[in-house]
Amino acid sequence: MNKKESFEKLKNYFGDRWSVSRSDIENHGRSESYFPIYAPDAVVYPITTKDVVFLVNICQNAKIPLIGYGIGTSLEGHTAAIKGGISVDFSKMSKVLDIDPYNMSATLEPGVTREQLNIELRHSGLFFSVDPGANATLGGMASTRASGTTTIRYGTMRENIQSLEIVLANGECISTNTKAKKSAAGYDLTSLFIGAEGTLGLITKVTVKLHPIPELITSGVVAFDTISDAVGAVQAITFTGAPVARLEFLDEKSVEAFNAYSQLDLPLKPHLLFELHSSEKSTVGDIENFKSTCSEHGGIQFKWSSKEEERKELWALRHKGYYAILASAPGKRAIVTDICVPQTELGRAVLETQKDISRSGISGPILGHVGDGNFHAILLVDPKNPKEMKAAKSVANKMANLAISLGGTCTGEHGIGIGKLDFMQAQLGHAWNVMGSIKEALDPSNIMNPGKVIKRN
Amino acid sequence: MNKKESFEKLKNYFGDRWSVSRSDIENHGRSESYFPIYAPDAVVYPITTKDVVFLVNICQNAKIPLIGYGIGTSLEGHTAAIKGGISVDFSKMSKVLDIDPYNMSATLEPGVTREQLNIELRHSGLFFSVDPGANATLGGMASTRASGTTTIRYGTMRENIQSLEIVLANGECISTNTKAKKSAAGYDLTSLFIGAEGTLGLITKVTVKLHPIPELITSGVVAFDTISDAVGAVQAITFTGAPVARLEFLDEKSVEAFNAYSQLDLPLKPHLLFELHSSEKSTVGDIENFKSTCSEHGGIQFKWSSKEEERKELWALRHKGYYAILASAPGKRAIVTDICVPQTELGRAVLETQKDISRSGISGPILGHVGDGNFHAILLVDPKNPKEMKAAKSVANKMANLAISLGGTCTGEHGIGIGKLDFMQAQLGHAWNVMGSIKEALDPSNIMNPGKVIKRN
Repeated sequence: MNKKESFEKLKNYFGDRWSVSRSDIENHGRSESYFPIYAPDAVVYPITTKDVVFLVNICQNAKIPLIGYGIGTSLEGHTAAIKGGISVDFSKMSKVLDIDPYNMSATLEPGVTREQLNIELRHSGLFFSVDPGANATLGGMASTRASGTTTIRYGTMRENIQSLEIVLANGECISTNTKAKKSAAGYDLTSLFIGAEGTLGLITKVTVKLHPIPELITSGVVAFDTISDAVGAVQAITFTGAPVARLEFLDEKSVEAFNAYSQLDLPLKPHLLFELHSSEKSTVGDIENFKSTCSEHGGIQFKWSSKEEERKELWALRHKGYYAILASAPGKRAIVTDICVPQTELGRAVLETQKDISRSGISGPILGHVGDGNFHAILLVDPKNPKEMKAAKSVANKMANLAISLGGTCTGEHGIGIGKLDFMQAQLGHAWNVMGSIKEALDPSNIMNPGKVIKRN
Repeated sequence: MNKKESFEKLKNYFGDRWSVSRSDIENHGRSESYFPIYAPDAVVYPITTKDVVFLVNICQNAKIPLIGYGIGTSLEGHTAAIKGGISVDFSKMSKVLDIDPYNMSATLEPGVTREQLNIELRHSGLFFSVDPGANATLGGMASTRASGTTTIRYGTMRENIQSLEIVLANGECISTNTKAKKSAAGYDLTSLFIGAEGTLGLITKVTVKLHPIPELITSGVVAFDTISDAVGAVQAITFTGAPVARLEFLDEKSVEAFNAYSQLDLPLKPHLLFELHSSEKSTVGDIENFKSTCSEHGGIQFKWSSKEEERKELWALRHKGYYAILASAPGKRAIVTDICVPQTELGRAVLETQKDISRSGISGPILGHVGDGNFHAILLVDPKNPKEMKAAKSVANKMANLAISLGGTCTGEHGIGIGKLDFMQAQLGHAWNVMGSIKEALDPSNIMNPGKVIKRN
């Protein structure tokens, strides 16, 4: 069956859940980032695993690329149809199938978003912890090994997925794990598919791990005179084993944008935003310990609250950070970098990046999940200004190379997509070939999101 | 080069670190478990990664099996040379290479044991958390995805390894990860090699994650009238988000053996042993919460202590459990089962197992890491008594099948080796083929611990 016949067959099968309209294919080829549009040939909207199996079998036969699509919040061009093919939009597979409070897990279709999940969990006493900021789908978050603000305590998607249902390139459907909390039965397939960016198969079901909502949550903010002081505090806090659930860094430039956007008057200094998860009985002691650790490292203007509204306000501030920074430079778009370095290299990495940005002539506030050594510069550019684009890309490249040279990674949480492919060889060496061999073994025809993660024709 | 020539070349290279003596090869073919001796043709003692690369290149060429060997504590026949070949004994690669307190990690050769590591860490304020009881090597623990008593809080080896250095079947040497706390750069190779039981390559270096030693550790014990009560308490404790670092179950028979072995007078009832890791300021509240949760579920005779000596005594008791149980039946050997079920199925699984054991006519105390849904029956048999062996194997098979039927796994932490191969198809279905494809891709000649995890000729 050739491509045309295959498309005909798929059109018959999917009916109005098959689309080749210009607006639809362009929407699915567009990204939140600076990449050009790579439109797929068609978009399909499965509603069952069976649909996906049918789709894969047809496309395997005709060697048509398949690109999973969640809600389009990826920043590295993961959903770009660089070799054409079909965008598999999971927005109609968005049911929470089962909440299992006693096993502290929930099973959902891949199109469920994290906010939707937490709303459905609201009466369970449990929550899903991974919070990348954007209201991404769980399928997408699994595919990029997403993380975000709560990683320091609850881990990335790697630590918060129990099991995945995958439709492989050969049309077989597997479950990667059992419902037991741990297992030593063979290779860790769950981890293999988390972060595979859809290159090894399509995720059709996700079982996530849930956590008990802590008895008391305290959020706050503390300023430092220098970045080194702030980073020193982060190091010391980690060492105390404090129940820190979030630990975020903002540089002076970010604070300036936040102040303007949200009518605040935070001092124009580096800041840490934090959140502690503990019990009624232990919170006072925890806060005292936390405050004194910060003070020892030059922390000033320490403010905190355990009131839900005030806490939510603080984190809304952080989550709106991207928009606050965009608003600080009207008309510009953002190139969001994403490096992660060993904790000991964090201060150096932030300072060198600040210097690079300042030399580049463009603006680029820095913020990040410093409890993990992960930070972002939001490089503000006019995409139509080649000089600015060149300067921004040069800063981004320098950051990635800096991270690698410091023993870190060119991407802490945004993934490879097409944006970071050029750094894989330098970072991974022969380990990249191992990834290539796995890809070749599981997807010999290279129909699963071709051109991402692995370089192959 | 044929096998004989290869052996000659290896003998010349390794000198007195090459052995074909009967006692040496038999020792390396023997296990702590009930399996017959599968002696390798030779034993080699590498001291560097370069040695291992040399070895692999020769053996790849002549298709000679290579079986990694730590300290021989495996319970499922992982190190059995079922297809002959060379046992690669890592006991001479046992240096802690680097302790990096500020990045909370340590890099070590694979022959380092977990007790050795914790002794070397004693002045750092940090500890390595994974504690399977046996003083296993880190290379071995990584290979079987070991876990044990502290998993409920700190996770298994999967959560506690930063990176591995691996010599692949093709002789290439890779590092699976960077030193950053997280990374979204491609497939999670670290997780793939953890639990691969040496079938995808040989581990030549391990970087582990460390944790701050908690300010205050409290250990204790609490009795329950019934297993259901104890399991109910476990469920409730998990739900409170208490800082529980260990949560172990002992059935009446185990308690009886412990009493006899250590001259104790614990009531002959199901018990939980626990440990809380918290701060000076929060401990009193944490203990109060913990005690009241247990009481609500029928917990009685609640005893605890934060004194180091008393704590250590309690856990020595648990760690000596295997020997206490062996001592309760002089002349017998143990078949140790290892299943893990979803938390909600734990009570049922323990009760059904107790009934099966009682029907079988053999003795089999039960204990386990119930915070994870993982438990073991220590089946006491005379290996020369075929009737007992048959009864024990029947109980073990029933347990594995029961776990699978309840949505769990035939092995929570001991691994597959040769002991659990027969359950892989039932548990994993087509996912087992996926593992086979990965094995084929990375080790096409099947020289890496052949016959384990994957079924292939």
